[in-house]
Amino acid sequence: MTLAGLPTLEHGREQIRKILREMVDRLDPTIRRVVSYHFGWCDERGAVLDADGGKAVRPGLVLLCAEASGADPREALPGAVAVELVHNFSLVHDDLMDRDVRRRHRPTVWALWGDAVAVLAGDAMLSLAHEVLLGCESPHAAAAQSVIAVATRELIRGQAADTAFENRNDVSLDECLAMAWDKTAALMAASAVTGAVLGGATPPVRDALGAYGGHLGLAFQLVDDLLGVWGRPEVTGKPVYSDLRSAKKTLPVTWSIQNGGPAGRELAACLAAPGRAATATDDDLAVLAGLIERAGGRAWAEQEARRRVALALDALAGVGIPSAPAFQLQALAHYLVDREA
Amino acid sequence: MTLAGLPTLEHGREQIRKILREMVDRLDPTIRRVVSYHFGWCDERGAVLDADGGKAVRPGLVLLCAEASGADPREALPGAVAVELVHNFSLVHDDLMDRDVRRRHRPTVWALWGDAVAVLAGDAMLSLAHEVLLGCESPHAAAAQSVIAVATRELIRGQAADTAFENRNDVSLDECLAMAWDKTAALMAASAVTGAVLGGATPPVRDALGAYGGHLGLAFQLVDDLLGVWGRPEVTGKPVYSDLRSAKKTLPVTWSIQNGGPAGRELAACLAAPGRAATATDDDLAVLAGLIERAGGRAWAEQEARRRVALALDALAGVGIPSAPAFQLQALAHYLVDREA
Repeated sequence: MTLAGLPTLEHGREQIRKILREMVDRLDPTIRRVVSYHFGWCDERGAVLDADGGKAVRPGLVLLCAEASGADPREALPGAVAVELVHNFSLVHDDLMDRDVRRRHRPTVWALWGDAVAVLAGDAMLSLAHEVLLGCESPHAAAAQSVIAVATRELIRGQAADTAFENRNDVSLDECLAMAWDKTAALMAASAVTGAVLGGATPPVRDALGAYGGHLGLAFQLVDDLLGVWGRPEVTGKPVYSDLRSAKKTLPVTWSIQNGGPAGRELAACLAAPGRAATATDDDLAVLAGLIERAGGRAWAEQEARRRVALALDALAGVGIPSAPAFQLQALAHYLVDREA
Repeated sequence: MTLAGLPTLEHGREQIRKILREMVDRLDPTIRRVVSYHFGWCDERGAVLDADGGKAVRPGLVLLCAEASGADPREALPGAVAVELVHNFSLVHDDLMDRDVRRRHRPTVWALWGDAVAVLAGDAMLSLAHEVLLGCESPHAAAAQSVIAVATRELIRGQAADTAFENRNDVSLDECLAMAWDKTAALMAASAVTGAVLGGATPPVRDALGAYGGHLGLAFQLVDDLLGVWGRPEVTGKPVYSDLRSAKKTLPVTWSIQNGGPAGRELAACLAAPGRAATATDDDLAVLAGLIERAGGRAWAEQEARRRVALALDALAGVGIPSAPAFQLQALAHYLVDREA
């Protein structure tokens, strides 16, 4: 199963891209080119191409949840574009903060154009996210905008915690789960709720879809953390071990430190040694990966991701979601845990 | 005349601060403290203080323009808070981009907490700017939000140009004026229009107030550029000559290069020498300041600022603005060109 097989996402992809381009065209030429590069529409000199612009999971979720609420998914298109802009604003700023040099198989924005341009490109996308909903005639547009604004605050809180945790050695699993919620699950939940709100969902359906999105978001982050260690860089498009190099307290790392016995303690000691992770070779980091595996963090994260997917699907039961979108929401959930990129 | 003497601004100041604090309280404790520091409400460790939080010109303008439109200025309070948040989002990000280390007599956010925190604190303020208007019950709230969103795009375009111009030696005065419009005048005009929109202004009054705000904004930037060279750091709260050190193409510099004869050409040559400005001593930069003066750039900027104020005041004539706010709008304009900080 790939996302390409889901009819609502397949139909929505071109429309989302069209509106996204119209929004990006509002920017001045310099920042427009940078944002277009980030979305994979052009190379760094502006030459048109069709590169990997990301999986578009969040906008897909918006459309599916509008359909699940009984609406024509097209009614939720501005919401889909808004969450995609918020997600990509956060990617461009996070890459700068984390000093990550590659994303989607290409150099990151700050790595190519410097800090100032990356800050401005992210700012522009955040502002456009609000503009697209301000231009939407739905009576629910302001409610959707509020959902997205609150999620943006959570996103910022999550990224603040994520960077702060790099310098801490006593992060608990609860703190780490809260950080993962803020950093990833909040916007996934908000994407689902945005679709529901724009689709005129009843409160039970809206809440069910929000719960689905939240559980799915945590599953998504668990898989992301696993791919950051055991993913294949030629598939993920990111360098291997960059989370370990920054001493990130990812979910499998934090679980291993807290519950992983001797291997977990050794992992903790390695990550706590000042500057050690930053200067480590790939072989050194492979040793850390082995410690996470021996501590049981890998198995736990895999199992926890599956458990979260099951919770996501459970949340959908009994609120009368039509079968076509319900099937696609199930397929999306399975795709997100089985993915390799 | 100081801003303290204007009744509408005086009455509004506490209410603006109260709403601003309520909004900032929505942030997580880490970013909340950073934003509170930036606004002068606490020191870098969080201890309460009452430091310089800026002149609050833009929120004052919002309230005055609502009153000028015949409304109770309190109706425009959410708009006043929104423009103050957008302005301060841009300051925190601009300080990072420009690597400015002091503002309002204190270290800047990035200088104290690093790049990641400064990026997040700015992001949070931009997002809160939309939240405050989303929570506003005025039927004109969405229109105000759109005005502010468009100005945010102009602000970003202006900052992109400002940083790009540092590495260019052929910036024309027209390009420089367009940059100054985007960077400063756009949000001043938007502040005026926000007040007008929330105050239910008729189109002629709204347009007159927008024109007033725009002219005032250009005057404001001209004065800012002058204070950056000839201001007293103990009054401005910023290091002297930082614009010259970064080879910024400010309005007096650009005018001097384009129209300043031999002194202008010498100035251009000095600024074009690679790395020269960056390593210059204060004495070297004083020589550059002397060149701007001899080229006539200082006199031109002073005169142009006065001309813009006159245009701002002309714009207000004949649309029936009540005398109390009209008087204050005049006083505000005079204050902004006569200020020393």
